[in-house]
Amino acid sequence: MRDIFTAELAALGEDLAAMSRLVESAIASAGTALLEADLALAETVIADDHTIDAVERDLDERCVALLAQQQPVAGDLRQVVSALRMSASLERMGDLARHVAEVARLRYPDKALPEPVTDLFRQMHDGAVRVSQEVTTVLETKDLELAGAIERDDDLLDTLHAQTFTAVLGEGGAPLTPQQTVDITLCGRYYERFGDHGVSVARRVVYLVTGDFADDRGTL
Amino acid sequence: MRDIFTAELAALGEDLAAMSRLVESAIASAGTALLEADLALAETVIADDHTIDAVERDLDERCVALLAQQQPVAGDLRQVVSALRMSASLERMGDLARHVAEVARLRYPDKALPEPVTDLFRQMHDGAVRVSQEVTTVLETKDLELAGAIERDDDLLDTLHAQTFTAVLGEGGAPLTPQQTVDITLCGRYYERFGDHGVSVARRVVYLVTGDFADDRGTL
Repeated sequence: MRDIFTAELAALGEDLAAMSRLVESAIASAGTALLEADLALAETVIADDHTIDAVERDLDERCVALLAQQQPVAGDLRQVVSALRMSASLERMGDLARHVAEVARLRYPDKALPEPVTDLFRQMHDGAVRVSQEVTTVLETKDLELAGAIERDDDLLDTLHAQTFTAVLGEGGAPLTPQQTVDITLCGRYYERFGDHGVSVARRVVYLVTGDFADDRGTL
Repeated sequence: MRDIFTAELAALGEDLAAMSRLVESAIASAGTALLEADLALAETVIADDHTIDAVERDLDERCVALLAQQQPVAGDLRQVVSALRMSASLERMGDLARHVAEVARLRYPDKALPEPVTDLFRQMHDGAVRVSQEVTTVLETKDLELAGAIERDDDLLDTLHAQTFTAVLGEGGAPLTPQQTVDITLCGRYYERFGDHGVSVARRVVYLVTGDFADDRGTL
């Protein structure tokens, strides 16, 4: 029983990392679609999101089956419940990548973002791609230093998110259309939430390794 | 053991309903704060959100303790895992109410919403309050007809959310300031997400009662 459980748990961990790689690909393509008005890439992200959803369903069913069949306690139980939570966060990160791609698709053949905020969103894109890559690696390696890097990249996304408001509200510069203001507001929010979910996954990994949970959102 | 489990499960159900009543109160006050520029009410919602977070932590710990100590299977296991999921949705609904209150607080003493969209947001407010009341009742009574009402109110919130874009982008009428456009965009999104989470709770109740899950998001 113990061997089966250990093997199943290892498989869950590998599949979470694989799910995270799908999220990496989604956010990287979504950002490129947004910045370059690349319709084909946007449509790929939108079409592929169901794959991430399917992985979440599969992981969840396996977690529940593990709970039922192996009846884990203590640290083992914590790992299975954490896997349930992490798959929910990764699924949501996939949704947010899809939302970014949807904005790109809606504005095609135009670029959704006007030139003055392009650099800002390129930085958000880079930050979000880094978060997703770091999430994959922390899931694979349990390297807690990377968890710190995710927190820092999330802080950067929060700072950049605040700058989107400055850009939208700022005096001077060419005035934005209401549509541009809406798109900047929503895309900024999507990237900010993407970082939050990345941090949430990282904190669960830290908790599983150290027993410390880094914020006040509870222990599982 | 069985009696203890049944009693614990009943207590979990009651506490989820109590948590939902806190969310009801939060969204009702947040919407009034937004529509009336009521600073005190906004600050109450913001300050009280930690109570909802604390209930989530407590519920989660009890769910995990139940899994460890009672090792439920089949329908019992499904109920405990569903409780974990429902408390996460309710916690998120509390966050969204807080976000609405934060917009009200940031714009005080002004009203965040300009007059032309006041009626639209009053309808969103009414819809969100209804969703939260229906969620409480469905948790208390397991009345599946109410689950249908939640789906319909969520559809209404989606329709109203689409109308916020029309209002922001529409020709004619007084032009909005960029800040108003941002606030309308974000508040519309908060209400739309609030409805989604309400539906998520309702579908889990339906699933627990009937075994049918109403969308493709998996079974637990």
